[in-house]
Amino acid sequence: MPSRGEYTQIPVELGERGYPVIIGTRVLGELGDLLRERQIMGKIAVVSTPRVLELYGEAVKEALRDWEPGVHILAIEEGEEAKNLETVAALYDRLLERAFERSSTIIALGGGMIGDTAGFAAATLFRGVDFVQVPTTILAQVDAAIGGKVGVNHPLGKNLVGAIYQPRLVLADISTLRTLPGREVRSGLAEIIKYGVIRDRALFEFVEGKLDGLLDCEPEALTRTVAGCCRIKAEIVREDEREITGLRAILNYGHTIGHAVESLSGYGRFRHGEAVTIGMLAAGELGMEYAGFPEQERDRFTRLILKAGFPTDLDGLDDQAIIDRTYSDKKVVDGQVRYVLPERLGTVRLVSDVSEASVRRALAYVRSLS
Amino acid sequence: MPSRGEYTQIPVELGERGYPVIIGTRVLGELGDLLRERQIMGKIAVVSTPRVLELYGEAVKEALRDWEPGVHILAIEEGEEAKNLETVAALYDRLLERAFERSSTIIALGGGMIGDTAGFAAATLFRGVDFVQVPTTILAQVDAAIGGKVGVNHPLGKNLVGAIYQPRLVLADISTLRTLPGREVRSGLAEIIKYGVIRDRALFEFVEGKLDGLLDCEPEALTRTVAGCCRIKAEIVREDEREITGLRAILNYGHTIGHAVESLSGYGRFRHGEAVTIGMLAAGELGMEYAGFPEQERDRFTRLILKAGFPTDLDGLDDQAIIDRTYSDKKVVDGQVRYVLPERLGTVRLVSDVSEASVRRALAYVRSLS
Repeated sequence: MPSRGEYTQIPVELGERGYPVIIGTRVLGELGDLLRERQIMGKIAVVSTPRVLELYGEAVKEALRDWEPGVHILAIEEGEEAKNLETVAALYDRLLERAFERSSTIIALGGGMIGDTAGFAAATLFRGVDFVQVPTTILAQVDAAIGGKVGVNHPLGKNLVGAIYQPRLVLADISTLRTLPGREVRSGLAEIIKYGVIRDRALFEFVEGKLDGLLDCEPEALTRTVAGCCRIKAEIVREDEREITGLRAILNYGHTIGHAVESLSGYGRFRHGEAVTIGMLAAGELGMEYAGFPEQERDRFTRLILKAGFPTDLDGLDDQAIIDRTYSDKKVVDGQVRYVLPERLGTVRLVSDVSEASVRRALAYVRSLS
Repeated sequence: MPSRGEYTQIPVELGERGYPVIIGTRVLGELGDLLRERQIMGKIAVVSTPRVLELYGEAVKEALRDWEPGVHILAIEEGEEAKNLETVAALYDRLLERAFERSSTIIALGGGMIGDTAGFAAATLFRGVDFVQVPTTILAQVDAAIGGKVGVNHPLGKNLVGAIYQPRLVLADISTLRTLPGREVRSGLAEIIKYGVIRDRALFEFVEGKLDGLLDCEPEALTRTVAGCCRIKAEIVREDEREITGLRAILNYGHTIGHAVESLSGYGRFRHGEAVTIGMLAAGELGMEYAGFPEQERDRFTRLILKAGFPTDLDGLDDQAIIDRTYSDKKVVDGQVRYVLPERLGTVRLVSDVSEASVRRALAYVRSLS
């Protein structure tokens, strides 16, 4: 296989539960071979959305055309609204009707919602069947598909029902990102910038230098940044798979206020990444107060976000409502909201004693940008 | 605590996921101390059935009367019919309405159905909260409560949805067995006999010798056999937690045909243990054909089952229907049903190439006994 040299392979080292993240352009066609290399041999169900199947359904069927035990394509509705227990129950039904077995494999083909929902079905059908992530959005490739967090929403909050269940393989085909709408690309870029701030200053600087190329989905720049993010995510997951040491919690940088803004505005107005940049902008301001984040670094960060064209308009969203909503975050410990705040570009720290007045000032800073 | 000497404590050795099984008469009152010893400190939900709560609700409340963070008692309907995803979803709602957090603990107080259902809720709420098993039936004490198998039924089969999620503690109070109806005691005895056949000839012989005492719930005989079974279960779980080596699969002895009979007859006609003895009787016959099980051992086994008063009447259940149902067993590998068959009393083997004709002969043998 001469093309094998073009892959980037990043190991997620978790002992017998470890697996590779494979990143490359046009690697989707290698799916069958990669599964066989991982000793995956049974029946396969590809869970996806109608929209993603229209784009990549044929490519996946072609990659699995010799798959003797059989391949079933199962479309489910897209979007956060469908990420619930009813969708999972319907998946159980359809899988069992197709005589799925414990030795069968579920492949999630799509964005984070597909990975989370199909992954939860995989974690719980027969107490766990093999699971493969084929993420087709930046957000899913650099974050959601790696690390085993699967689950669904509950009327009382996002991701309240779920499991930590590692995939056997993550296959990130950079070519699939070219069909993303521009707003989706930008939303994914927010998570890439996040990795730069929490752990990798050079990555942040690379994004600054290549911003236009990234927004245009230039394959080389994307492959490099996606691989860089995956490397960080793999390292964090290896060191803190179950969020015990607190290391994995730094991935929530920008997410405390981000989730609050996202859920308050009803998941429609802001894309996830857009909400996260609002959270990161606020965290920059809080970082100056609580973590010694230098003002010129705060400004440099804000410049990148504005240059990338992220929305910063919070009109119609009340400060107190946003603050109240931060308390229903899963990361609340003993009633204290835990913020991830930058010390400098490339390093963050967890801070628990952030005052509401400070959050209000941080939101005022965000409002001042639009 | 002078009474501590009266416990039998069996460790389930699973590294950081390890936990003790504590067996004794009147140990329920120590629950609060035992939780504190295990560093369990948050809010508690005791999930149980109205019937079990009537018997032991007060004792549990008394044992947890100083529990500062609060104790909620949540009754759910009893029986296999209620062991489903809807019950789990309703539990999520009730737990979240009571401001349950990631640091909260679910205690399952009752039989296997309670442990399985509450355990699945514990495994999946917030991607996993602490979980404690307080089994009050023989079946749950010797089997279901140990080893982390949790889950619910699906219309197409038992336990098709679930997880492997270890409890932090198993507390088996032998005194709770005295309130079991005779038929429930007998059903539990089926699992004790199972352990004898698969792994411990001396245990099988002890049951033969003490059959009446065990059916009368004589505490000393029960404590000894329950502890013996727990030791075997702990050893099997330690060596094959996730059913990879095949060792754990031997616990399914009697369960392939047993589950088929149980689900075909609608979970009402046979108790679980009763269905398992039918499966074990059939496996004895199959063992003679496929595993060299001596006829006199088959007869000795059948004698014990009949002497204990287990039902063997399969009237109204069609052979082909039973056979068809075995294919939806979780243990089906590549379309082959994997049977656990005795070689002699105390040793079993996995056999995959059992013909339908042989299963028909084995069912005819069972039918001949009534």
